Amino acid sequence: MKLSFSNDRLLAVMAHPDDAELLCAGTLARAKVDGASIAIAVMCGGDKGVGSGSATPQADIARVRQEEASAAAEVLGAQLFWVGARDGELFDSYEMRLKVVEIFRRFRPTLAIVHAMEDYHADHRAASQIAEAASWFAASRGHVTASPALEVPPALWFADTINMSGFQPQIYVEIAGQVAIKERMLSMHRSQLQRSDDKDFAPLAELMIRQCETRGAQAGVAAAEAFRPHNAFKRIGPF
Amino acid sequence: MKLSFSNDRLLAVMAHPDDAELLCAGTLARAKVDGASIAIAVMCGGDKGVGSGSATPQADIARVRQEEASAAAEVLGAQLFWVGARDGELFDSYEMRLKVVEIFRRFRPTLAIVHAMEDYHADHRAASQIAEAASWFAASRGHVTASPALEVPPALWFADTINMSGFQPQIYVEIAGQVAIKERMLSMHRSQLQRSDDKDFAPLAELMIRQCETRGAQAGVAAAEAFRPHNAFKRIGPF
Amino acid sequence: MKLSFSNDRLLAVMAHPDDAELLCAGTLARAKVDGASIAIAVMCGGDKGVGSGSATPQADIARVRQEEASAAAEVLGAQLFWVGARDGELFDSYEMRLKVVEIFRRFRPTLAIVHAMEDYHADHRAASQIAEAASWFAASRGHVTASPALEVPPALWFADTINMSGFQPQIYVEIAGQVAIKERMLSMHRSQLQRSDDKDFAPLAELMIRQCETRGAQAGVAAAEAFRPHNAFKRIGPF
Amino acid sequence: MKLSFSNDRLLAVMAHPDDAELLCAGTLARAKVDGASIAIAVMCGGDKGVGSGSATPQADIARVRQEEASAAAEVLGAQLFWVGARDGELFDSYEMRLKVVEIFRRFRPTLAIVHAMEDYHADHRAASQIAEAASWFAASRGHVTASPALEVPPALWFADTINMSGFQPQIYVEIAGQVAIKERMLSMHRSQLQRSDDKDFAPLAELMIRQCETRGAQAGVAAAEAFRPHNAFKRIGPF
Amino acid sequence: MKLSFSNDRLLAVMAHPDDAELLCAGTLARAKVDGASIAIAVMCGGDKGVGSGSATPQADIARVRQEEASAAAEVLGAQLFWVGARDGELFDSYEMRLKVVEIFRRFRPTLAIVHAMEDYHADHRAASQIAEAASWFAASRGHVTASPALEVPPALWFADTINMSGFQPQIYVEIAGQVAIKERMLSMHRSQLQRSDDKDFAPLAELMIRQCETRGAQAGVAAAEAFRPHNAFKRIGPF
Amino acid sequence: MKLSFSNDRLLAVMAHPDDAELLCAGTLARAKVDGASIAIAVMCGGDKGVGSGSATPQADIARVRQEEASAAAEVLGAQLFWVGARDGELFDSYEMRLKVVEIFRRFRPTLAIVHAMEDYHADHRAASQIAEAASWFAASRGHVTASPALEVPPALWFADTINMSGFQPQIYVEIAGQVAIKERMLSMHRSQLQRSDDKDFAPLAELMIRQCETRGAQAGVAAAEAFRPHNAFKRIGPF
Repeated sequence: MKLSFSNDRLLAVMAHPDDAELLCAGTLARAKVDGASIAIAVMCGGDKGVGSGSATPQADIARVRQEEASAAAEVLGAQLFWVGARDGELFDSYEMRLKVVEIFRRFRPTLAIVHAMEDYHADHRAASQIAEAASWFAASRGHVTASPALEVPPALWFADTINMSGFQPQIYVEIAGQVAIKERMLSMHRSQLQRSDDKDFAPLAELMIRQCETRGAQAGVAAAEAFRPHNAFKRIGPF
Repeated sequence: MKLSFSNDRLLAVMAHPDDAELLCAGTLARAKVDGASIAIAVMCGGDKGVGSGSATPQADIARVRQEEASAAAEVLGAQLFWVGARDGELFDSYEMRLKVVEIFRRFRPTLAIVHAMEDYHADHRAASQIAEAASWFAASRGHVTASPALEVPPALWFADTINMSGFQPQIYVEIAGQVAIKERMLSMHRSQLQRSDDKDFAPLAELMIRQCETRGAQAGVAAAEAFRPHNAFKRIGPF
Repeated sequence: MKLSFSNDRLLAVMAHPDDAELLCAGTLARAKVDGASIAIAVMCGGDKGVGSGSATPQADIARVRQEEASAAAEVLGAQLFWVGARDGELFDSYEMRLKVVEIFRRFRPTLAIVHAMEDYHADHRAASQIAEAASWFAASRGHVTASPALEVPPALWFADTINMSGFQPQIYVEIAGQVAIKERMLSMHRSQLQRSDDKDFAPLAELMIRQCETRGAQAGVAAAEAFRPHNAFKRIGPF
Repeated sequence: MKLSFSNDRLLAVMAHPDDAELLCAGTLARAKVDGASIAIAVMCGGDKGVGSGSATPQADIARVRQEEASAAAEVLGAQLFWVGARDGELFDSYEMRLKVVEIFRRFRPTLAIVHAMEDYHADHRAASQIAEAASWFAASRGHVTASPALEVPPALWFADTINMSGFQPQIYVEIAGQVAIKERMLSMHRSQLQRSDDKDFAPLAELMIRQCETRGAQAGVAAAEAFRPHNAFKRIGPF
Repeated sequence: MKLSFSNDRLLAVMAHPDDAELLCAGTLARAKVDGASIAIAVMCGGDKGVGSGSATPQADIARVRQEEASAAAEVLGAQLFWVGARDGELFDSYEMRLKVVEIFRRFRPTLAIVHAMEDYHADHRAASQIAEAASWFAASRGHVTASPALEVPPALWFADTINMSGFQPQIYVEIAGQVAIKERMLSMHRSQLQRSDDKDFAPLAELMIRQCETRGAQAGVAAAEAFRPHNAFKRIGPF
Repeated sequence: MKLSFSNDRLLAVMAHPDDAELLCAGTLARAKVDGASIAIAVMCGGDKGVGSGSATPQADIARVRQEEASAAAEVLGAQLFWVGARDGELFDSYEMRLKVVEIFRRFRPTLAIVHAMEDYHADHRAASQIAEAASWFAASRGHVTASPALEVPPALWFADTINMSGFQPQIYVEIAGQVAIKERMLSMHRSQLQRSDDKDFAPLAELMIRQCETRGAQAGVAAAEAFRPHNAFKRIGPF
């Protein structure tokens, strides 16, 4: 079976500037080849992700990481939405829901990819909660934002967790032809790659390769990304 | 086996004005026949649920929906508690907990029915969280409200989800004799039934009938409602 | 809420001669008070359950244990069905299914109580598999035994596990008034109670009391037994 | 997203002659439109499924039901494999595995659809176990049958349960255009449809329609079939 | 197998002053024997836990309970961190996270024990959420508190629930030699033990003994405490 | 925390000759360093695992694989039990249970490691079922074999699945110092390593390394093996 995204618009709502690269950029890139439109929304500024020997002053980190995320999105040919919450301070609220509702209404996705609720990082889970709520409210006229409501809510997939901890995938997307673009995107995040000798930091490129190779091996192909569709009313979009 | 509610007081804490009709009104009605006292608490005003061609000005919707909910509760012979939070803006907080604690203390339920945490709508989940917390605090003297504390917390059941998505029931209540009253109650929600040609709106009566017939078929009867008891200390009331 | 068994016929299909006492006899006894008819089917002869210092020759154990089970069933006022498979050698087969189908057809239960598939003992799991299959086939005319087919399959509950290991109950039945009868029934199993100083043997009476007190405490009463209804087509009998 | 089956070969391994119609024929038909090759393997002869007022002598039922299954397969344009085990007597064994391995090797599926292990009927579960084992052994040269081994094992999906009891779907396939063909296939099973006034028999056409409408409503379309991919090594084929 | 805590530092983050005694003090005591350092953080003041006939004025309860918790910690030889949130008003927030981050950084645990998210009390769940978030942020330099960041996040275990309701343990720690110290610690909580004739209050010592005996019996020893490691990136510390 | 196996006897009951190497040999080797005694039981002869270009005649494969398994066990310093069932033909039966009971009684393990029931291969699951049943019967005098019964049943852990598909670990054992011995053991299985250009065969050494590195990364160490303790009466040995 092959999933075609030719009539789709995919929006990944991720917590931090490099999460899409690690968890779903291969799928976004494959959808793009099919003719889909692609966007990434980054909820947090990455402002707490400073390396021990970083030359960048703390105050500048969020700006640097936004520029890196823009460069990565450009590699993919994706639109970038930058929400700008602070790392570690992201919580579900009506204000945050409306911000993401407006992103949904401007991009009008048919498929939203969000973090899994079992992911290891509190920001990932908060981003997931907000995006899940927004995926419904975006199609409800009563919630007023600058743009008009969607006709129908998008389908929603939960992305794999970092390092695959505790995640039970149900869908694997083959991405052997998209590993290279994932690596190029990741290489744009220079401030993160410089952290490679920090003890509190996993080497990103290696983690990313091992993860898509492992998911590939589980499905009998060279590389894959793994997801679980959201089993909720009108969000488990049919194939 | 037959469950008797003759010594019970049932309180359904639902998010929106017509959720009880869809998910548990048949069980409430059956309990009423046994001699139980019945109440419904509605957390949100339904103020965002406006149809595309609605003649009702947005500002009046909450008032209209409260009147409709009152009419529906009257059909059932149930007391109505109207909390009045705004749609989409319901979050767990100590203030909201105390409001619901006071409702518990005034009605003194032996069984509370709340939304399942796997339901599709963020308001349903927030209503469930608040009611679950309140179900314990209502029986704790340290949390002071106008009315005195309960002797013991009520048992608590999670209701089916809208359209049965992602819900694994553990208890089925036979309601073949109560389908008619569910329909009459639903017919009181005129502002919602007028929305039937909106694309973003499921036809309520049809959805309700299909759901109780499907649950019935699973249990070998004509109609049923489905629940899962809350497997928590003193909340999984024994039969 | 209170569950009435007044129009019911309860059949517990258990692996060994004293399993009903430990896991569901309180519920059977309560149903009997309501006016229900009660039966226990014992699948295995208990022929391997010999104590280290037992005076009973191995060859006689099964006979002794059947007599003890009869005495215990008499205490309860229950019919006893003795299947007579050998301990440790019970496997699902068409022959075993038909034997249990015939028991179902003779007793015509409205509720069958069987072991949980997560129980610790291979015989418990095999007994559960056979009884679950038989619960459907008993109502299917195509499977021919001496007695005519049932009109409808019985509802089916999974019983708690020994010592509550790994079992997630969904229904608690209050049995404070039935603990004494459980103890009297257990006292009929003299060959087992004599094993109390064997290292490989849990003291039964103590285990039984602790289990029904713990289940009671979880539900806010003095004593309870715990079950999980079988969430399968026509076997999750409605209340 | 749309799943294309244009390069696929789908094999449904079902327990009884009409199970494919109820659970996956819409998906098979949609795949056929894409250009896929389609087959149905029926494990049991349906020989116990006799109606109370049936004119067909018991001895002839299996033959009648095979003819009906052939007619239904013809409606779909599917190849039919008839295994011929007896109802209620199907168990996993090496002989049964090899029979199904040979079917896999003759048809060479890329996707196998089998019953869910949580289905209500012991035959469904046995058919699932046998087909799951065969899906691996078919690609292992060491297991010798008449036909040569597959290069790779097929992907494997678990089908919905009858009446959706206890099944948590992860994939929905939209089949609004295939409901009619499901109905035509079902109408070929005349011996079953005649049973409609038996108390022990659910009216098939109604059950089938309600199930695909409910699954459709959950996914926001008119009709759907629901599945769960098998999360096992090389059997969770990537999309 | 025997788990050695000789190189460890254990921090239990509990909601109320006596929760550690009930759920994990035996394990803390055993680790102490191995040479580990031990601390308990209490999130809420216990200010709502007033008995019906209490002589202590409500305003003094929190102070009394802090003194009792200090006495209990002294019995164990554990450091006590008193967070001082109000009962029933504990919610996840960045402020609360930073408070707990600072506790983590001052004590520098290698293993954190927190409440299970399935526990019965909203405060337990909020304490768990906050501590889980803090367990990661404590090792992230970007989150600034008075003390320097940890090198690596601690491993994290979820503790058993009160009365074992709804908790599936994966690790049992044998504590037969530590039951006495648990009882001595519990006896320090005089204000709670005086509540024993309140209807809304479980007798603590009895509950504690039954729980560690039951967990012991499940694992074949006289007494045990039960846990579930947190299956998340870098928090499921290897053995 | 560090798990010490100094007083233990570990028995891995695996389906095929190289499964222990892939899934648990690092843990066995670490236990050996602690002073534990180690054994591996291989249920199936590996007689179906013939490569496409193999020089070994089919009839000799089982003998070759037994020799390879012996050589690998020697590398580890482990006793080898060879059961000799045929690949694909392993099923739970009383005869197979007694064979494994006798192995348990001869080796007298305190910890048994068996396959997970969610593993991809029918032989793995059958080996797991048999070993789980035997783990209880080995300590029951009524089941007579050549050797006397154990005093208590061993604790039981389920091993990771091949390629980590669908397995949720609860315990990680750090094995950075044991990867080399895993590789040496694996290199003894020459007949399997020669199959590396078969399409139906995963390159074993690469799979093994990726798996223990991934499990290591999840737990924050260089290499680990993952397990889930069996949550059943007296089999979830306390730490």
